This record gives sequence, C-alpha cells and structure tokens, in this order.
Amino acid sequence: MINNKVANVCAPGGIETAEDLCTALGALTGDDGKMYFSSSTGVIGWSLPFPAMKEALPSLVARLEENRRREEEAPGEALLEVARGIMTTDSFPKARSVTLGGGRIVAVAKGAGMIEPNMATMLCFVLTDIDISREALRRILPGAVDRSFNTISVDGDQSTSDMVLAFSSGRKAPVGEEAFAAALEELLRGLAEDLVRNGEGTGHVIRLTVTGAPDDRIAREAGKGVINSPLVKTAVAGNDPNVGRILSSLGDYAGNNGIDLDPSRVTLTLGGYRIFREGRFELDQKTEDSLSAYLRDAQLPSDSQGYPVHRRTVDISLDLAMGSGSAQVLGSDLTHEYVTENADYRT
Amino acid sequence: MINNKVANVCAPGGIETAEDLCTALGALTGDDGKMYFSSSTGVIGWSLPFPAMKEALPSLVARLEENRRREEEAPGEALLEVARGIMTTDSFPKARSVTLGGGRIVAVAKGAGMIEPNMATMLCFVLTDIDISREALRRILPGAVDRSFNTISVDGDQSTSDMVLAFSSGRKAPVGEEAFAAALEELLRGLAEDLVRNGEGTGHVIRLTVTGAPDDRIAREAGKGVINSPLVKTAVAGNDPNVGRILSSLGDYAGNNGIDLDPSRVTLTLGGYRIFREGRFELDQKTEDSLSAYLRDAQLPSDSQGYPVHRRTVDISLDLAMGSGSAQVLGSDLTHEYVTENADYRT
Repeated sequence: MINNKVANVCAPGGIETAEDLCTALGALTGDDGKMYFSSSTGVIGWSLPFPAMKEALPSLVARLEENRRREEEAPGEALLEVARGIMTTDSFPKARSVTLGGGRIVAVAKGAGMIEPNMATMLCFVLTDIDISREALRRILPGAVDRSFNTISVDGDQSTSDMVLAFSSGRKAPVGEEAFAAALEELLRGLAEDLVRNGEGTGHVIRLTVTGAPDDRIAREAGKGVINSPLVKTAVAGNDPNVGRILSSLGDYAGNNGIDLDPSRVTLTLGGYRIFREGRFELDQKTEDSLSAYLRDAQLPSDSQGYPVHRRTVDISLDLAMGSGSAQVLGSDLTHEYVTENADYRT
Repeated sequence: MINNKVANVCAPGGIETAEDLCTALGALTGDDGKMYFSSSTGVIGWSLPFPAMKEALPSLVARLEENRRREEEAPGEALLEVARGIMTTDSFPKARSVTLGGGRIVAVAKGAGMIEPNMATMLCFVLTDIDISREALRRILPGAVDRSFNTISVDGDQSTSDMVLAFSSGRKAPVGEEAFAAALEELLRGLAEDLVRNGEGTGHVIRLTVTGAPDDRIAREAGKGVINSPLVKTAVAGNDPNVGRILSSLGDYAGNNGIDLDPSRVTLTLGGYRIFREGRFELDQKTEDSLSAYLRDAQLPSDSQGYPVHRRTVDISLDLAMGSGSAQVLGSDLTHEYVTENADYRT
C-alpha cells in the first residue's frame, strides 16, 4: 500500500494509522493485515488522512484481479501503470525488467534516493515469479542495493523514508543464486540511473569513476564528496569546465576525513581529456572550448517533459594513486529547476 | 599584495611567480621581499599574468604614503577603499573596526569562507596599531577565527585559498591579551556575518543554535549539516516552513557520523515557535502561516544591489538533550541567484 503527499514521519499517531490501514486492507482481501507493507512519501510531520484512505481501499482491491490478468496477457502493461501511479515529482515512470531462466524480475521505483526527504522519497518494489527463498533474497538484496541506489546522489540529502522491497511469487523454476543476484543488480543499477536522470531539475547526469583509493569505501565517499559539491554541480549545469572545483572538492573531502592525499599524484580527466597530472593543471583555451562543447552535448534540455531525450553522461575520472580501491558514483548538476522545485513545490 | 581573477592554485610555476612578485615589490619599497605576503583569489589552475602585475607595482607603491596620511586624517576612509578594492562577487565592501585602549583594531574581508574556491575565496586582513607581540597574536588569532569564520557556511565548499592575516604596527600602548582577544573575536564575528549576508545569492541569513550536544564539536558539525542541506536551504529561500527537512538533515548527520540521537528527546524551534517535541511535530495551518510570515519578513530583496537593507536572521534552535555541547552557526539559503552566479560567472 503506497501513498504520496504525506510521508507519515514523526506525525502524531502515525504508526497506528499505518497499521490500521493494513488491517483494513487485510479485512478486504481476506489476509492477515501483517501480510501488507505500508509505504509513504510526502511532507514530513503531517498525519495521514485515515478516513479518506480507508474509503478508497475497496475500489483498489476490486481492480487487483483484473490487473493480474492484464499483466499475464501483456507483460509490463499493468506494471507501467504502477510505476506511473507512484510518481510524484518524477517526470517519467521508472520500470525495468530482466528475463532469467523461465521467469523474470521486474521493478518499479520513484524519486531519487537521497534527493528529497519530503516528496520524492525513493521507493522501489521488486517482483519476480522465479522461485527464490526469503533467506536468499535477504542475502542478495543488500549488496545489489549497495551497488546501485547507494551509489547515486542528487543533492546529498538522504530521505527519512527510502524503501526497497522484493517479493517472489515462486511460480517459475528457481535459477542459481549467483545468476539471480547478477540479474537483480543489473536491474537495480538501471533503475538507479533512471532516478538520477529524472532527479529534480537534472540537466546533466555526472558519472564519476574514482580509482587508486585506499579502499572501495573511501573511493565511494570521495566520489560522493565531489558530485555533491554545489560548485561542481553549478559549473556542470552552466557547461563551464571550471575543473579546479573538482580537485578542490576532492581536497575538501580528503582534508575533512584525514585522508593523506598527495595532489602531485592525482590524475583527473573529464570527457576523456586529461586536465590535471603531477600537481599541475593542463589547461589552455582549446581544451576549455572542447570541454565546454562536451558538456553542452551531454546536457538534457530543461523543457523535455517526460522521457529523457538521450542517455549521455558527463564522465569524470579521478585516480588517487594510493591503492586499489575504486567506485563509480552517479550524480546530477544543480540547476534553476532544482531550486524552483524545492523552494516552491508546496505552494 | 592581493590579486583577484586568478587563484594561482596548482598552476605551472605558481609558487615561483608569487615569490618573484614579492621580490619585485620589495625592490620598490626597499624591503626584503620576504616581508610581503601574497594573496590570490580567482579561478583555480590558471597562471598569474606576471609581466602585467609587475608593471602595475610602481603605481601601487606610489600611493602608499598618501593613503597612510588619509587614514590618519579620516580613520576608515582608506580602509574602506581597500575593502572595495578586494571585492569580486561581493556586492558590498566588508570593513569593521573596534576601538580598544588608545588604539583600534580594523579588518577588511572579501568573499565567504566556504562558499567558493574559485572567485569568492575568503580573504581577511586585520590591522591594529595596538602594540601586541607576534606570539600573542599567534595565540589569539586561531581561536577568534574558529569562533567566527569557521562557524559560517554559504555552500559547504571550502576554498583552496582562505587566508586571515593579522598585523600590529605597535604604535599605541598595549592592552591586556584577554581584552585584545575579546575585541578581535567581536570584530571577526561581525565580519563573518557580513560575509554570509553577502554570500552569493543570499536571500536569508540562517542563524542556527544547537544545544544539548555531546560536545561543542558535534554541536557545530550537526549545525553545519543542517545549514548545508540543499533542501533546508531551498525551503528557506522559498519562505516555505517545510520544517521536516530540518529534522531530516539532523538525522542525516547523526546517522552518517554514528551519533546516537534520540528523536523523541529533540526539541526544534523556528522563529521562536516550538514545532517539534517528544518525537512529534506540532504543526497546524495557523503555525504554518505564522512561520511563512516570519520567513518572508527575514528575506533580503534580491534586487538590493549594495548594502543589505536589514540585519534580520532566520533563527532556528535545536536541542538534542544529550549533553552540554553547544554551537551557533550562520548559513544562507539556496536561491536562483546562487545558481546563476556559479553556473555562469566566467562567461
């Protein structure tokens, strides 16, 4: 049971309301209310409108059987409707599917993981008809989430209400656990990229690869430090190859976290152009022009309502020459649309 | 010697150029070049235009004596000219003065500490005629800087080139070290607030007081986590009392840093209104309307070029009920003007 507009976080009586709604749903389907999960996204601090939500339940339950039939006849159709139904500030529905063995794994998601704790909370629902035990899913899911949703950031603000749920109907023959895990990770990485590409106000998707870090955790944290820098984000938004900001934000992260970074060993590339090596920038007007053109080419038009018009990314690589840790993180730029959406959306 | 436009950071031959300029300056004034400090602010990665800068030195030196006389006749006048001369993206000059004993301490600053590692790098120059030893200044200055500039943040981006220098001419009688330290801290706190009020695109100055933290360091870090949250900043920019974001960003900081925060003990106020206590928000339409009006009242008009039209702040307090640590931090909102200035300023 998924609702938007009100996140039901720290609201008076919030937990009881969520449980009462699940109980009411169970009474209509003949199940124990404990069989249901409650997902809420929206403004923090306000209470759910319980009477109105309870009144809406019978019409939802009445359509369950029809939707089940539609999904069997035309796989993906009812799923897309779910993906549309959970959209809030999303501009296009996020649904992905992989086939595996005799079955498939599908997932829908909304929002972007860390973008917005109020309205665009990240919710993801994974469904598979492949027989896989609860224990195996619990083993596999955290790693797949860690290597997909946990590598993205739109604004560095983590949500109070992020959720990924996975369900198996067990109707199709099992596949190996490793094969299932690989397929699930591919699915979720695709969805995670969809979320960034549709992040609030996203004009560019930034794909930053960090190598040579002391370990993978530091590589990821350093990468997130860079893609969350407002100055890196605004430079990319303006197609301005102000590459000093990338190195400065890396230094910020290293200094704040006691990482013994040696700038003279760091190598930085943007769009395949090497721009920093051996402690010196390698910049001239021709390189600047090429980098500007590269950034303009990767920009998503701000007036594209609906699906993104291309899947290009701004590729940055940072080699720290300290060890063998690496990570890839996805971020977005910081645009006027982001400010508009977050300063004004409730009015 | 202060220049803007080019920060001279990681530029080929950068250190040598700075030293050569100080030597050239010393040759003109008859001093050892080592008597001079070099301060640069601007774009990272590019080289200083050495020949043009060297050519400009004689005309600067020629005006030194005249400026010294003017400052004696009309204290503050030549100082204000220095404050104007070092402005880059600043919209008004930052100069403050305190009198103490038979002398005074004056200081000028530009930019905002963590706002902008390229153009608005924070530079501050403190001058006093009060006799105080180099050792005493070195003892006093770090604490005063820590409790002033280090408590402000415009965008969380630390600069490659922040600098605070303090000089004493020793012409006036000494005062007690404690009295000097107190006056210096007052001076720098005022300048630090000026920097935030003139931060790039600042529409509101946020004054956040954290009490009840395990220690002062955690209080300050938690406070900075909140005032650096893009969602808190955009909500304030839009005069939207979306107060859930304040608590969510506090939770973000606590979770990321292993702080054992108990939300049921946290108290949150905004503009004197208590809005969260005992794990529950206390929100209704009337409170929302009052908070919106409070935020509108504290807003700086975006078209005020020059000095700010008022000195009001958005006052937020967070009591964590964990210990006796406290801190006050100053931040700014996140506006369209910030994005414009940082996405487009080089073009």
